[in-house]
Amino acid sequence: MIHLMNDYDCVGHPVVLEALRGHQDKRFSNYGSDEKTAEAKAVLLGLLEKPGADVHFIPTGTLTNLTALSAFLRPHEAVIAPVTAHIFAHETGAIEATGHKVLSVETKDGKLGPEDISSVVEVHTDEHMVKPRLVYISQTTEFGGVYTSAELRALRGACDEYGLLLYIDGARLAYALASSRCDFGLPEIAELADAFYLGGAKIGLLFGEALVICNPQLQDDFRFLIKQRGGLMGKGFLLGIQFLALLEDGLFLELGEQANSAAAALYEGLKSLGYEFEIVTESNQVFPIVNKDELARLSANIEFEAWNRLSSTRSSIRFVTSWQTTEDDIEAVLTLMTRSA
Amino acid sequence: MIHLMNDYDCVGHPVVLEALRGHQDKRFSNYGSDEKTAEAKAVLLGLLEKPGADVHFIPTGTLTNLTALSAFLRPHEAVIAPVTAHIFAHETGAIEATGHKVLSVETKDGKLGPEDISSVVEVHTDEHMVKPRLVYISQTTEFGGVYTSAELRALRGACDEYGLLLYIDGARLAYALASSRCDFGLPEIAELADAFYLGGAKIGLLFGEALVICNPQLQDDFRFLIKQRGGLMGKGFLLGIQFLALLEDGLFLELGEQANSAAAALYEGLKSLGYEFEIVTESNQVFPIVNKDELARLSANIEFEAWNRLSSTRSSIRFVTSWQTTEDDIEAVLTLMTRSA
Amino acid sequence: MIHLMNDYDCVGHPVVLEALRGHQDKRFSNYGSDEKTAEAKAVLLGLLEKPGADVHFIPTGTLTNLTALSAFLRPHEAVIAPVTAHIFAHETGAIEATGHKVLSVETKDGKLGPEDISSVVEVHTDEHMVKPRLVYISQTTEFGGVYTSAELRALRGACDEYGLLLYIDGARLAYALASSRCDFGLPEIAELADAFYLGGAKIGLLFGEALVICNPQLQDDFRFLIKQRGGLMGKGFLLGIQFLALLEDGLFLELGEQANSAAAALYEGLKSLGYEFEIVTESNQVFPIVNKDELARLSANIEFEAWNRLSSTRSSIRFVTSWQTTEDDIEAVLTLMTRSA
Amino acid sequence: MIHLMNDYDCVGHPVVLEALRGHQDKRFSNYGSDEKTAEAKAVLLGLLEKPGADVHFIPTGTLTNLTALSAFLRPHEAVIAPVTAHIFAHETGAIEATGHKVLSVETKDGKLGPEDISSVVEVHTDEHMVKPRLVYISQTTEFGGVYTSAELRALRGACDEYGLLLYIDGARLAYALASSRCDFGLPEIAELADAFYLGGAKIGLLFGEALVICNPQLQDDFRFLIKQRGGLMGKGFLLGIQFLALLEDGLFLELGEQANSAAAALYEGLKSLGYEFEIVTESNQVFPIVNKDELARLSANIEFEAWNRLSSTRSSIRFVTSWQTTEDDIEAVLTLMTRSA
Repeated sequence: MIHLMNDYDCVGHPVVLEALRGHQDKRFSNYGSDEKTAEAKAVLLGLLEKPGADVHFIPTGTLTNLTALSAFLRPHEAVIAPVTAHIFAHETGAIEATGHKVLSVETKDGKLGPEDISSVVEVHTDEHMVKPRLVYISQTTEFGGVYTSAELRALRGACDEYGLLLYIDGARLAYALASSRCDFGLPEIAELADAFYLGGAKIGLLFGEALVICNPQLQDDFRFLIKQRGGLMGKGFLLGIQFLALLEDGLFLELGEQANSAAAALYEGLKSLGYEFEIVTESNQVFPIVNKDELARLSANIEFEAWNRLSSTRSSIRFVTSWQTTEDDIEAVLTLMTRSA
Repeated sequence: MIHLMNDYDCVGHPVVLEALRGHQDKRFSNYGSDEKTAEAKAVLLGLLEKPGADVHFIPTGTLTNLTALSAFLRPHEAVIAPVTAHIFAHETGAIEATGHKVLSVETKDGKLGPEDISSVVEVHTDEHMVKPRLVYISQTTEFGGVYTSAELRALRGACDEYGLLLYIDGARLAYALASSRCDFGLPEIAELADAFYLGGAKIGLLFGEALVICNPQLQDDFRFLIKQRGGLMGKGFLLGIQFLALLEDGLFLELGEQANSAAAALYEGLKSLGYEFEIVTESNQVFPIVNKDELARLSANIEFEAWNRLSSTRSSIRFVTSWQTTEDDIEAVLTLMTRSA
Repeated sequence: MIHLMNDYDCVGHPVVLEALRGHQDKRFSNYGSDEKTAEAKAVLLGLLEKPGADVHFIPTGTLTNLTALSAFLRPHEAVIAPVTAHIFAHETGAIEATGHKVLSVETKDGKLGPEDISSVVEVHTDEHMVKPRLVYISQTTEFGGVYTSAELRALRGACDEYGLLLYIDGARLAYALASSRCDFGLPEIAELADAFYLGGAKIGLLFGEALVICNPQLQDDFRFLIKQRGGLMGKGFLLGIQFLALLEDGLFLELGEQANSAAAALYEGLKSLGYEFEIVTESNQVFPIVNKDELARLSANIEFEAWNRLSSTRSSIRFVTSWQTTEDDIEAVLTLMTRSA
Repeated sequence: MIHLMNDYDCVGHPVVLEALRGHQDKRFSNYGSDEKTAEAKAVLLGLLEKPGADVHFIPTGTLTNLTALSAFLRPHEAVIAPVTAHIFAHETGAIEATGHKVLSVETKDGKLGPEDISSVVEVHTDEHMVKPRLVYISQTTEFGGVYTSAELRALRGACDEYGLLLYIDGARLAYALASSRCDFGLPEIAELADAFYLGGAKIGLLFGEALVICNPQLQDDFRFLIKQRGGLMGKGFLLGIQFLALLEDGLFLELGEQANSAAAALYEGLKSLGYEFEIVTESNQVFPIVNKDELARLSANIEFEAWNRLSSTRSSIRFVTSWQTTEDDIEAVLTLMTRSA
């Protein structure tokens, strides 16, 4: 079986696991007050070139999103997000459960533009409606798309114009940073976003996301909020140890590049084989369109996600590569998918 | 000035006000435990032909909606509603503020059909998404449209198929019941809905809405919920006195008919004058399309709401009639709007 | 029957009802954007001598409390209140339902002192606990007690020391202002509190409370919050008309004095008759201690609330006077309660 | 340094860490739909002798508590808990943040008795107050105390009498089960509680708690709630692997016994040395009372928590033992604490 289902189907990268094992005989102070956590934060702040930012390690992405957004908003303030946003579509109403409306915008490709922001803000005119206050985007998008520096700056501009916060869900930020389309770095993300998180679980950690609060006005008392929502781990040092392993020698970028290369090879290979795609590949996700017979055949040999049923005979499927995807995997997939002449 | 802005711009109907004055020297027990409230409930239950239903009088419509919906739903359960629904568009995220997502559906005319329900339910397949549990409609709709008996039964059918509750926001239910399009009565509403409310403030009361919980499984402890959300008035008897005045001699239907007749006269008159309409009139709202000059001229003489800007030269406007709208008002409007030959 | 059950058992004061009737033929703009509301606010601001304050009229006390407190607090911030506070004991967890903990303090007489505030603040030391942020008191207290100017200033001092907001629930503020113990006026209340409300329903209005937000940092977007919680009445002008009637000629103080005088007469009269009291009377509530036989006899002739069962033979009861309490009522009660020699 | 600060200051037990490493090359299906999770659940259900129970693995204790309690309660329903309960005192208002009041009861030793339940239920009589619906206890208590079978049955009886749910926070349940005071087993816990959790993080796991929902009426849709609150891990298999390692060969009991023995040795040894204790040791926590000089001296050599300052010269301190506490540690502590004659 070739595994292209997702990028979080294994325990963790050996370097990360080794780091945990290497600290097995140590004792740590609790709730993230330990040295490893401090060290990991320092390394990340160094990468961000943003000394005034606050870093918090939180066990899951949904918890990160809901803790951050509910901390940043007053009760009547709402979030603007693409209709495909994880918080809108796949977190079981987690944001609404904290009391806030998510105002969704239809988009072509899961990417929000400044005009989407205007269109929402302009119809929210009085106290009978929620007040848009925060723009949520994902980098990469749900479909592996990558916002360029120019696109991010345009969003920031719209946010400034309307007095909105910009929040970037970076569950797969490492893949964006490692993308060939990437013309920005972590410092630019930290400069443009009021807050963002750098995901760990999808890039080799056992678990853990690193929330960065760049805007000082959003930083007060944040540990209270983490605790209240259930995200303050007694063994906070586990997050410190893991993120240190991921960040200190650039492992996150390395793993991102590896996965993106595999995806690019898959994408180019399939294109050569005559496949069409529902979405262009910009990071570690590939969306070929296959026919019924192909779908059946592939299912027997590859783990992947069925994406969209396009007609009675054609479907798109999703391949997600990771640091575990090998050249052999790619070759095997291309062989399996070679169409007979 | 001719007043066609809305149906809640005056203190209240004289009969209602007189009822309050008539009880000025009496003393009542508190929080709705008084005789007048009991009497008003009994009269309403009689009209509903639904002895097992529970009636609660609540000061405002938004409070009624948010108290009821949050009482009926578990945290992960969501509401299906037209994108134009009052709770989705004009209650400042009141439902979300209680923790629940509202799943909106685009509709042609503000009316939900069974296929809209299916379309939402069918894409909510697992625990990464909220679970649709309650269908919210307004009768009349936000645009004065009236669901027929057949339409309501079709919705009920879809709700039964998918295990959903049906909730009817009846802020203007009196106008629906008095509509010429009406082929249903209060008993049918009470039969089909799990809960609904009969609005008072838009039909001559000073304030107050009558929530009816038809489904016995939703009735437990409801007074706790009203109190918790702030809707339990110490002087609950004020609601009892008013609703008794509105219901005991059919005043609510009388006032509804009066307003609907005025709207129909306006609609037919304007049609004769050559006007087109954005929405067909089925109750007490009329939506003529006017040009720029007409808009300016009318604004000087009539209070109304600008509705949609359709082009640089054409707009729809909204006239709302009420029991206070006179034949003279109608005549004056038609005179004002007569287009020179 | 003599009515001493509470101060909200009748429709409303004739002046208030007459004011409503006097506007019966007028039309008003909606949601409190009308002239009467503006006028009532101006009158109240004049009385407060606090031109920068914001006034909002809200239908019920619980709604006022929950809307204000949830607007002022971030999710991890908590309220300090006496264990007997209305929000802690008798609003069905309304504050907690908005997500905030209420930290209760045992008190001797329902009054909070600076040492109560310190004692709570000092044990809330880190992010594993909520952060105390707002002090809630009632003026008069639940038992009719009146904080003096010195007591209020001491509380304000403690709030300033610890960075806390001071909120005063004034459901019966008129009775406090009219108390013989009163050495403060509305301007002093407005100077010391970050926000407070002046109750209407217990002093002759049909319904309505006037929330005053004195602290400019708490004023932003407050109408959004009122709408979201269900307190924005379409017919907001009803509140404006009533408050204008109550405030413009000092009616609220007049009614307060009338009720307090009646209570004082009752208190002194009963003292002369040899009764003891559970609580000293400072406003419109009287708490005599009666024996079993007396309790039974009184119940047949007076409507009042049984307060505390002190032993198998002795109970305290509560008499609440209002503007409707007459000298005849007092005399009749005293006659009924005269103990045979 | 001797480490007696807490039982969660190290990465995890070698067996657990080895189990993770042993699965490093495998791929798993996501969100807990994997075989390891299924296997771990089956083992736990076997230990419970309760085939109809539902098991969910959740990353942290606070998340477990808040997800479960908010899933089980309607908005007006409240929790009864000791004033020292973790959810009341040390989870930053997490339960209130989901909308529910926690009704606290003063206790002598952190243990709730049936009379505490009655005392709360009996004063919550109507809709102006929250409705008590769930009793929360911790086993062991916050102070290491162990409820006996008889005590648990008495609580269950009171819950049945008043229609209340019984929830047991078992962050340290393994220590209770391994206590010499223990006259019950997991099956009895599962029989008596409507839901409980068996903590992992304090007994050798890296992280993870096992929530068991015994009452079938509370089981519906629970995965929705876990997801909504942020506790559904993409890599759910990590929890399955760890709990399997902890449960399949009884490791949790073994580690509990080891820690309890160490605590008992410490307790008896200190008693022999003439120390008094603030709380009697029943599991893995020891609370000796020391004087000022001793406190200073111990701080230099042992990591522990200062507990209560009892006077200007005497304080209680807390030692927590774990599977890592060695005989040498105990001996060293006793030597350090030997009082000169």
